[in-house]
Amino acid sequence: MSSEYKALSPETLADRLGGLDVMKKTVGRNAEGWTVREVGDGNLNLVFIVEGEAGSVIVKQALPYVRLVGDSWPLPLKRAFFEYHALIRQEARDPGSVPEVLHFDETQALIIMERLQPHIILRQQTMEGRKVEGLGRAMGLFAARTAFRGSDLSMKAGDKKADQALFAGNVELCDITETLVFTDPYYDAEMNRHTTPQLDGIVADLRRDEALKVEVQHMKRAFTSRGETMCHGDLHAGSIMVTDTESRVIDPEFAFYGPFGFDIGMLIGNYLMAYHAMPAHISDANACGEFQAWILEVIEETWSVYCAEFLRLWRTERTGILYPKALYEDQGHDFASESAAQQLLGEIFRDLVGFAGIEMHRRILGLAHVAELDTIEDEDLKAKCEAKCLKLGQMLVMNRNRLTGMDAVLAAARQTETGGQA
Amino acid sequence: MSSEYKALSPETLADRLGGLDVMKKTVGRNAEGWTVREVGDGNLNLVFIVEGEAGSVIVKQALPYVRLVGDSWPLPLKRAFFEYHALIRQEARDPGSVPEVLHFDETQALIIMERLQPHIILRQQTMEGRKVEGLGRAMGLFAARTAFRGSDLSMKAGDKKADQALFAGNVELCDITETLVFTDPYYDAEMNRHTTPQLDGIVADLRRDEALKVEVQHMKRAFTSRGETMCHGDLHAGSIMVTDTESRVIDPEFAFYGPFGFDIGMLIGNYLMAYHAMPAHISDANACGEFQAWILEVIEETWSVYCAEFLRLWRTERTGILYPKALYEDQGHDFASESAAQQLLGEIFRDLVGFAGIEMHRRILGLAHVAELDTIEDEDLKAKCEAKCLKLGQMLVMNRNRLTGMDAVLAAARQTETGGQA
Repeated sequence: MSSEYKALSPETLADRLGGLDVMKKTVGRNAEGWTVREVGDGNLNLVFIVEGEAGSVIVKQALPYVRLVGDSWPLPLKRAFFEYHALIRQEARDPGSVPEVLHFDETQALIIMERLQPHIILRQQTMEGRKVEGLGRAMGLFAARTAFRGSDLSMKAGDKKADQALFAGNVELCDITETLVFTDPYYDAEMNRHTTPQLDGIVADLRRDEALKVEVQHMKRAFTSRGETMCHGDLHAGSIMVTDTESRVIDPEFAFYGPFGFDIGMLIGNYLMAYHAMPAHISDANACGEFQAWILEVIEETWSVYCAEFLRLWRTERTGILYPKALYEDQGHDFASESAAQQLLGEIFRDLVGFAGIEMHRRILGLAHVAELDTIEDEDLKAKCEAKCLKLGQMLVMNRNRLTGMDAVLAAARQTETGGQA
Repeated sequence: MSSEYKALSPETLADRLGGLDVMKKTVGRNAEGWTVREVGDGNLNLVFIVEGEAGSVIVKQALPYVRLVGDSWPLPLKRAFFEYHALIRQEARDPGSVPEVLHFDETQALIIMERLQPHIILRQQTMEGRKVEGLGRAMGLFAARTAFRGSDLSMKAGDKKADQALFAGNVELCDITETLVFTDPYYDAEMNRHTTPQLDGIVADLRRDEALKVEVQHMKRAFTSRGETMCHGDLHAGSIMVTDTESRVIDPEFAFYGPFGFDIGMLIGNYLMAYHAMPAHISDANACGEFQAWILEVIEETWSVYCAEFLRLWRTERTGILYPKALYEDQGHDFASESAAQQLLGEIFRDLVGFAGIEMHRRILGLAHVAELDTIEDEDLKAKCEAKCLKLGQMLVMNRNRLTGMDAVLAAARQTETGGQA
């Protein structure tokens, strides 16, 4: 390939990539016979499925601008570099959780990776009312393992500092989160949109809530300064691909060093939105209620698995500089070590609740929405579902330091959903 | 100068640096007539005073090992690079607070800087019972200005992330803090020393305090992961040079991105040790009590000036991405902005109290002690002063989230000093 960046197209891909050994081996030697489809449905990149006689792969290439917005919003190609570095770390930290990377070309901002098949995006699956066996367990393990193993609890101090410095270069993608998640939704910013006029009143109320805006900015400060571990950075139901029995994580181009609770918080925020959106997707009330109950079970399981795995790693893999065994176990103070772990999990819980609430706001008030809500054609019904998310999000942000645990989050969700009538 | 690193000596300095324009201009053209004295009394570096017919300068050069320990403990020369970068940032953020940098040679790990004259090290001054007019104000301003202006409250997000990545390279000096401050003192580590046998009992008690060890490791986690601002990293009474009326800060080679409260916490921990050590340095009880009262006033003033300056900068220079005016002042929500600032100061206070307590422990239990205590010849008296520091430090770490404010810290110090008899 040429040394200068050039966006691929279905027409040029075979010609440009056909000479790569990895493509010959994985897709087939007869590049002229490849089928190439562009399937990028995300906001940022080109994504191709390339099929040949030997098999198929995904070719993902960054574009020099935000696809959702156009070339008026430039975005550096370097995000492919961060995605690559995040993918190989996630694979090492939770083997099998992400697509295998087959090839990376930094100049072309291009990653060739394993095609997940017959996986579909999680939110497509759930919008069709189909469950995923083991989803909570898979995501709880992924979040706990990547959190623990990317931190000073596990890594050598110099390696962690070097990785933190590396991902500090992901400035523009962090800026998207800093602006679109933590700021714009809380005032009348240019790129915002919300369901109008139905939500106008509640949106105005929310933007008048000064205490809420203070809490959200405290959480934003945690986002920008608490470099505890390498986060995926964009872990929502569009970054998870599933079959009925398997779950894999994709698209970590927003990777950065941030709070332990960030990824799992964003994810749970997305689950809670799906929960409130389900009545628009499953018309049968009983079937809908049963599916909603499953979503809450997934949340519960994600967090309980996270805690159990975090504790297991704490006991067996705590090789980093924090809470060293020399101070605890080696002194016969095993229980102090357990206390420290439980206190840390408490802190992670309080953070994740806050991040979940903020995610629920930005997906309804900001630029980027979620399909579970955005595809609801009946604007009144849509607004009704969205209003529940806004209220629950506000409750979570404001009460994150005072809740008894995940049971309280789920109880609040049920109460919000039924309005006290269930 | 040669492109290969070579340590300077008083004999070689004139020959090696005589050709530099900055030396000709500042010290004088007649290098053969220069007087060169090596005066490094710190733990890590060579420091020369070079005097000539035009004036004098300081030449500071890093050694490739820890001077205090010897070449068995190698330490990278790159720390001069971090010191240089910290010095120019501190000068920009609090003009006049640090020596002017005249020349930096990265290969030689060498900084030529303004000679502060007739300044002496703060702890020399206080051990002689001499006050420094304006000390609290100068240090409160320095700590607040460098904290605020090095953070996401002020800097452009990309600049802050780039600086954080740059200082993330200061691995070995952070390791010293991580090990010698936050870990070794709390168990029987090899390099530790304490006044024995007088302190053996209290030291054993302290190392059995499991809750204390958990709190300290939470603070260590803040040190390694909460990159809120560029910290000096080693702000104690040996890093401040004073006259009777002026205070300047030196030696920021430990600079790193850390918690807002780190520098001011370390500093206040050092003041509190000086407070408890004074009876060994001023024999007249009234004079001693009067001087001790002054130390507590300095602490009070340092913190009150810090708060006032932080709030002033918050109102007038909040140009960063955190707590943006678009969300508050521009919406007529000025008071929310004030609330956020006060909550943040509360958080900084709770952190600084913890860091102060830990600093008081490590200077008595760890490798590097402070002259105020270490020079007390009567071992029983020394142990008595040190025991007070250990107890107060423990109280501060364990109660940092529950105190009403700095008045409570000072009251606890007075109570510790008098044992309730004053």
